[in-house]
Amino acid sequence: MAVSPTDLANAIRALSMDAVEAANSGHPGMPMGMADVATVLFTDYLKFDPADPAWPDRDRFVLSAGHGSMLIYSLLYLTGYQRPTIDDIRNFRQLGSPCAGHPENFELPGIECTTGPLGQGLAMAVGMALAERHLNAVFDDGLVDHRTWVIAGDGCLMEGINHEAIGLAGHLKLGRLNVLWDDNKITIDGATSLSTSEDIPARYRAAGWHTVTCDGHDPADIARAFDEAIADERPSLVQCRTIIGKGAPNKQGTAKTHGSPLGKDEIAAARETLGWTAPPFEVPASILAAWRAAGARGGALRAEWTDRLATHGDHDEFGRRVAGRLPDNDVTATAIAGWLADPQKVATRKASELALDALTAAIPEMIGGSADLTGSNNTKTPATTPLTAEDYAGRYIYYGIREFGMSAAMNGMALHGGVIPFGGTFMVFSDYARPAIRLSALQRARIVYVMTHDSIGLGEDGPTHQPIEHLQSLRAMPGLDVYRPCDIIETAECWQLALNRADGPSLLALTRQNLPQLRDGGGMLSARGAYRLRAAAAPRQVVLIATGSEVEIACGVAERLEAEGIGADVVSMPCTSRFDAQPDDYRADILPGGVLRVSIEAGTTFGWERYTGLEGMRFGIDRFGASAPASALYDYFGLTAEKITPKVIARVKG
Amino acid sequence: MAVSPTDLANAIRALSMDAVEAANSGHPGMPMGMADVATVLFTDYLKFDPADPAWPDRDRFVLSAGHGSMLIYSLLYLTGYQRPTIDDIRNFRQLGSPCAGHPENFELPGIECTTGPLGQGLAMAVGMALAERHLNAVFDDGLVDHRTWVIAGDGCLMEGINHEAIGLAGHLKLGRLNVLWDDNKITIDGATSLSTSEDIPARYRAAGWHTVTCDGHDPADIARAFDEAIADERPSLVQCRTIIGKGAPNKQGTAKTHGSPLGKDEIAAARETLGWTAPPFEVPASILAAWRAAGARGGALRAEWTDRLATHGDHDEFGRRVAGRLPDNDVTATAIAGWLADPQKVATRKASELALDALTAAIPEMIGGSADLTGSNNTKTPATTPLTAEDYAGRYIYYGIREFGMSAAMNGMALHGGVIPFGGTFMVFSDYARPAIRLSALQRARIVYVMTHDSIGLGEDGPTHQPIEHLQSLRAMPGLDVYRPCDIIETAECWQLALNRADGPSLLALTRQNLPQLRDGGGMLSARGAYRLRAAAAPRQVVLIATGSEVEIACGVAERLEAEGIGADVVSMPCTSRFDAQPDDYRADILPGGVLRVSIEAGTTFGWERYTGLEGMRFGIDRFGASAPASALYDYFGLTAEKITPKVIARVKG
Repeated sequence: MAVSPTDLANAIRALSMDAVEAANSGHPGMPMGMADVATVLFTDYLKFDPADPAWPDRDRFVLSAGHGSMLIYSLLYLTGYQRPTIDDIRNFRQLGSPCAGHPENFELPGIECTTGPLGQGLAMAVGMALAERHLNAVFDDGLVDHRTWVIAGDGCLMEGINHEAIGLAGHLKLGRLNVLWDDNKITIDGATSLSTSEDIPARYRAAGWHTVTCDGHDPADIARAFDEAIADERPSLVQCRTIIGKGAPNKQGTAKTHGSPLGKDEIAAARETLGWTAPPFEVPASILAAWRAAGARGGALRAEWTDRLATHGDHDEFGRRVAGRLPDNDVTATAIAGWLADPQKVATRKASELALDALTAAIPEMIGGSADLTGSNNTKTPATTPLTAEDYAGRYIYYGIREFGMSAAMNGMALHGGVIPFGGTFMVFSDYARPAIRLSALQRARIVYVMTHDSIGLGEDGPTHQPIEHLQSLRAMPGLDVYRPCDIIETAECWQLALNRADGPSLLALTRQNLPQLRDGGGMLSARGAYRLRAAAAPRQVVLIATGSEVEIACGVAERLEAEGIGADVVSMPCTSRFDAQPDDYRADILPGGVLRVSIEAGTTFGWERYTGLEGMRFGIDRFGASAPASALYDYFGLTAEKITPKVIARVKG
Repeated sequence: MAVSPTDLANAIRALSMDAVEAANSGHPGMPMGMADVATVLFTDYLKFDPADPAWPDRDRFVLSAGHGSMLIYSLLYLTGYQRPTIDDIRNFRQLGSPCAGHPENFELPGIECTTGPLGQGLAMAVGMALAERHLNAVFDDGLVDHRTWVIAGDGCLMEGINHEAIGLAGHLKLGRLNVLWDDNKITIDGATSLSTSEDIPARYRAAGWHTVTCDGHDPADIARAFDEAIADERPSLVQCRTIIGKGAPNKQGTAKTHGSPLGKDEIAAARETLGWTAPPFEVPASILAAWRAAGARGGALRAEWTDRLATHGDHDEFGRRVAGRLPDNDVTATAIAGWLADPQKVATRKASELALDALTAAIPEMIGGSADLTGSNNTKTPATTPLTAEDYAGRYIYYGIREFGMSAAMNGMALHGGVIPFGGTFMVFSDYARPAIRLSALQRARIVYVMTHDSIGLGEDGPTHQPIEHLQSLRAMPGLDVYRPCDIIETAECWQLALNRADGPSLLALTRQNLPQLRDGGGMLSARGAYRLRAAAAPRQVVLIATGSEVEIACGVAERLEAEGIGADVVSMPCTSRFDAQPDDYRADILPGGVLRVSIEAGTTFGWERYTGLEGMRFGIDRFGASAPASALYDYFGLTAEKITPKVIARVKG
């Protein structure tokens, strides 16, 4: 007997409800509701090969509604990926299973990105679709020529980031992006009508999208909608009208199926409804065979592509980029040598631009941008011409006033591979982007955040624009390297360190105001996170620890202390996480005991006890800022060598 | 000679360009571009009285595009508010001037909210309009019956939060909200066409809004559009086609006028173009008189309203609510007494619900809600029936999947006055709301954030849903009180403390998992931020400091240590900021020197050196979480009494 699309879909339904039941935790409603749509996608449309999940030209599939993780686990298993095994699925949501509560890109090949925080999957898919068009334009012969497919729920569409993401996609005419909206009219609190009255397709059309509707349980109608979406040049929203929890006869269509196991009785009833007689975690051989055949569809395409790449003139360059290896040239060292010979007094945002001038010229996979602060973030260089709908080969993106959308798109670009994104906004607006920064870190994505105007040193714009808690709150985030360089030399070093890190994000905190060049030698000292910039001349009684613009102040304090016969080291600490990773003896040498340790940073003192000890002193700002010229603010908040020195002397002599 | 609307508008233009020039910093383009629209609004439409900026039934005016702050400073001065004076304006952006770089609600009466972080002003206005409809429904005789007006720029409309805000406003049919969109087709990077292709009015219509277009430099056309907006029952977007920097002949219509002084020459040319002959900071007497007359329009209305209130049956209750005084009853003490007699083992989210049951019944101004996690955040109580477009008197808002929009709306509600908002989401999604939480703190707004699922204790949902850095990064924010109670008694205490705080926001971090009742007495011990929950029996060698769900673990460690003859205090620290504010002797008594201090919190250890010293021990999680049942995770991350105790003993004995 032939296996029908519904039989195939029911395999997803059975695995999903059984795995959630076994875990006594999870979300059966979405996988059961979208099983038919996903079946049509994976059996007839998606370009992929389970034998090579890393195939660079595969279609990207993003389960933006990540709570429905059993959908993707089912699909990966059924189509024949090496993992998850059926035992992995049996261990859904248990310690050590790659089948985590939400899909994690680092757990299973075939999962393109980590989803769960709503809205971000779709926004990352925009970045994937953008990277695809860029690489398609850069490399000829269709080396990169694939689609990006998304399954998104009402939550993804209601989140603010959805507006930013679809605005960007519509503007950049990312026509190979197709979003399949699980239109089930249910959210956790109940009917969507409790909280929204929006005409969603109309909104998408207003953003330059094509929209089409289908019955999400009718395979033929789904295919018709997919065909229409593919034929249209615009990005497409496919409205799939579905019933959440479809197949569970007493609970389907209600929020009860969303986030809890169906329960034994309802699962038994669903088995009857679906005509599914196999025991839990068993898929009848004929159905599994049909799924595996669907999974094998892409093998020939991949073989053809592999042959094409083998003889392609850009074979090596393409391979280098996809592998994420930087070119073999050290333009940073050359630039630093120049500045050592000819010192520069510039803002570190300007120093960043100067470093970027060299880096972007040498590293063609770097793609820059800014959330509408190009001239303030200094992120644009001559090598990075605009990336537009008319020229996807460009390398600079005008992201608009979309900090979160930009950051999520950069996540998608980095995860797509072949490009290294960097993007700027004001440091204080890292708050707007924070959920995406966290996903950069969790997903181990190579992204460089360029955050300028990093303290009260920005001056007159006042407290809404002055970071206070931001440096420390970002340093508290696992997996993110926060750099705050003190001069042009450190800035170039930090840029290089950030780019060298293939397995995670970095964030550069840069000044608006000019800073003197404090370094008179190279040596990539920033690599250790903190180092002795000035050694005490008189017998050492004080170690001053500072970052960024406050290192200049620390040097001024040290001079004054030395004039009083108090020896003082100055330690520049551009990256606390790198310093924390140094061996004990190095850290003990830089931050010795038995002396007064003093931190100076124009932000909250919270957390600086880690380096000063409780008995040390901490100069900073533990309130919101104010509107005034920068020099007036530094004086007002007591962050000058003149004001700090006497307090340190009093402590030393007291 | 009669004073024309254009003369009035030119006074705004002159003050704005002159103040920015004097400060050598600021944004002249927006005030000059929107001068005509603002003039029509303030002279003919806005209901206000400069003699009483706190008049509860005034129209609310929100300058969402806060960088154009000279627009509101000009308007307040011209219409006759006590402040700013012309000298305040001369000192625009200087230390001590209330005319800060961006408008600050705490600097000047007449500024309804702090703006500058784009998109949030409009989103706060939604909250104001919501509070207005609610109070209008609660109090009869039109005690509250006003409009909310917003000036917003392209940045406000492009930010993701705009989608959340207008979705909420459209769904709740807030027809008395009118947004005046400064459609000048310019952003900082240049033409809006660099980054967006959206049909903005179509998007607003898709969200249930009315839209209308006008020539933003034609007073009659502006008035026609306002009339149409007022006549329509839906919230309205008034598209005002304007020229940025209008009046500066060589720079108008370009990004050059956005964020920099025009320069002497261009200002001279603008004076000529505008026919403005008065020196800087002088407004011709006839024009100032006309403005003052416009400002005096509202006096009679206010007098009539004041008379109406004086004889209103709800006079006292209305006054109490507007003043922000809580009712004189202590339902929390009663509830606590009950639980002391009958101890409860419940999750603190459930404890929060039980406290809310009593509080919402006793405090009618409390308005709750959740970003689509009602059943998980436990924020709904019997007293809070749904607030809907059909029943504005309700007190529970289904905010939808809009964490940021919810939080900004709550800011607007609190700033409107007469209501005390509280709202919930998962703790990890505090990241989505973070920019609004910061504005709660900066604006000193009374809001209670209910953040449940506050650690790996949420279990299977995994790392995307498990807060790690969140507690510390929120504690690093100035002005925010973060509470993490350990049992039902502390939860009730923290709720009461949060409500008692009229001058700022509080955030409750609550568990998903059940916790035993550890307290056996009342006394509002949480008020000091930290206190000795268990005193050492054996001679004290260890002080264990813990919060929330880890206090139970600390008690287990203490028991085991005592069994070994090692005396150990257990300190519960539900609120670090309150503890930091205690006198030295109290803090020294709770956290004495000469003993081993040990912190236990299921989050990053970053920052805990403040309480343990460097020589202490810190148990926590300095990486992302994992997907598994809660008990498996606590064991995996070493956060059990069994795993912690031997390490503490080794240190004590080592």
